Amino acid sequence: MKTNHSKIVDCTIRDGGLVNNWDFSIEFVQTLYAGLNEAGVDYMEIGYKNSPKLLKGADQAGPWRFLDDEFLRKVIPQKGHTKLSALVDIGRVDENDILPRSESMLDLIRVACYIKDVDKALELVQTFHDRGYETTLNIMALSNVMENELLEAFEMIKESVVDVVYIVDSYGSLDHNDIHYLVDKFKTHLPNKRLGIHAHNNLQLAFSNTLIASEKGVELLDASVYGMGRAAGNCPTELLVTHLKNTKYTLRPVLGVIEQLMIPLREKEEWGYIIPYMITGSLDEHPRSAMALRASDNKDKAVDFYDTLTTPEVSFDKKR
Amino acid sequence: MKTNHSKIVDCTIRDGGLVNNWDFSIEFVQTLYAGLNEAGVDYMEIGYKNSPKLLKGADQAGPWRFLDDEFLRKVIPQKGHTKLSALVDIGRVDENDILPRSESMLDLIRVACYIKDVDKALELVQTFHDRGYETTLNIMALSNVMENELLEAFEMIKESVVDVVYIVDSYGSLDHNDIHYLVDKFKTHLPNKRLGIHAHNNLQLAFSNTLIASEKGVELLDASVYGMGRAAGNCPTELLVTHLKNTKYTLRPVLGVIEQLMIPLREKEEWGYIIPYMITGSLDEHPRSAMALRASDNKDKAVDFYDTLTTPEVSFDKKR
Repeated sequence: MKTNHSKIVDCTIRDGGLVNNWDFSIEFVQTLYAGLNEAGVDYMEIGYKNSPKLLKGADQAGPWRFLDDEFLRKVIPQKGHTKLSALVDIGRVDENDILPRSESMLDLIRVACYIKDVDKALELVQTFHDRGYETTLNIMALSNVMENELLEAFEMIKESVVDVVYIVDSYGSLDHNDIHYLVDKFKTHLPNKRLGIHAHNNLQLAFSNTLIASEKGVELLDASVYGMGRAAGNCPTELLVTHLKNTKYTLRPVLGVIEQLMIPLREKEEWGYIIPYMITGSLDEHPRSAMALRASDNKDKAVDFYDTLTTPEVSFDKKR
Repeated sequence: MKTNHSKIVDCTIRDGGLVNNWDFSIEFVQTLYAGLNEAGVDYMEIGYKNSPKLLKGADQAGPWRFLDDEFLRKVIPQKGHTKLSALVDIGRVDENDILPRSESMLDLIRVACYIKDVDKALELVQTFHDRGYETTLNIMALSNVMENELLEAFEMIKESVVDVVYIVDSYGSLDHNDIHYLVDKFKTHLPNKRLGIHAHNNLQLAFSNTLIASEKGVELLDASVYGMGRAAGNCPTELLVTHLKNTKYTLRPVLGVIEQLMIPLREKEEWGYIIPYMITGSLDEHPRSAMALRASDNKDKAVDFYDTLTTPEVSFDKKR
């Protein structure tokens, strides 16, 4: 039987924190970690490792936005099989905050950037790599990247120390044909790198795209429990766990997490297949206009919203 | 540019009626028809053409469960581009209720059956064909059909007058590999027939599966607005309309229908990606146990439900 090399990176806390400003209790995160560990999930991305000094409104966000190693040790006193990951953004991370891996709870540090910042991202990657961490480079908004920019980035990436390079469908606009195209392109130009995928669910394609990427050899599969993530959310962890062939994942602990944590949370917070997010996905653009709509009194005015985005003379506020 | 031969069959009233016992007002159906017609949707399945004499509880269901031609003429006094379709079940239809097409509002009659009843279904198909209708044969629960039964059915179907043969993923358990396999098999064994697909969304794969089937030449694509349909629901019409390439569909009228009809309805009625339906889908079985759970006080007890279905000694009530 063919071994499946897929590894699931559960982003519930990190990406889900974009929904509730990282307002997760310590017990919530501990219960989630225990469930993911029991289910055999490989990584839990427990937050951002950005610096509060470099971000506005930092004092209002939960602790998962600015992970502190001492705090983390109290949250997860005993790590299991599931490794811990953190994401950093270009220009928002203070390298002095990053301990050597031997002194840290974190195993993996991922650097997210837009295509124009790949050079800066790779410098950070080098730093984290030198401190002993596994590293990934997550190039966002690939659907809006021109071929020449991508090829230039590949040249730099190929020569770098980064372990895994991510295909990120930031706008949830890609379908299976796009995934075939991108994975083939990444494999051709980065034969020495492992690949990852981070999909969004605007068109209900996050799971399908992730599954197809996995079958094409993409190794690191981002997901979140019950799909929790900004706007339309992510590929649901429970679907990967139950459906990926030749893996050792078990569904039952993830169902426990959904029942205990996510169903009650979904009654207070909103994410998933919601029409304004479907609209931005189908137009291949950032969901921020849809997020603003959902926070307004016009949240279900789908037709007006669509007209605003598709009629040039009224879309003055359509900025990426 | 390659022409896309896909035709959308919107099943909102027929399949959605399984959610609300066909309790749609005449205005609702008229508004839906107008929206689908403006969007360029090819068929609207406006209900069942079963006989109330042959079904229990018939007096409690809305009129869309037992379509009457005279009634239909009042509902849709002027047909547009969008044709009308009705579904019949083996053993529940009275052939005497079916007028010649020239006297009927209906254009298409579809016969749903399990594999063991294909012979009876094809007799009905012949009758409807002789009365002038377009016909389809919808073989349900294909994921539970053995190869030898299927091949036997193909022999009968090949010789029949049926226009279109459907691949029906009744349990929402199929993924893209299954779709590739089934479409190839149907095309090989039924080279003289057009194909259709009816997908369910238990694993969030209904849209992806339908898209892939369409690209493989499957012509009739079942969908429903906002995915309304029994249990996890169907492939959403709005996603097909916005995403199918080289077609003349327009999204805006479907968004109007969602805003005006479906968002308010979804607040009263339940369908879609709900964990118990995910569980039955991943176990490849009928959603009826999950529907019973959702109607009970234990509707969010996902772990107990999963244990019931997966522990042999307690699953005495697990009947197909």
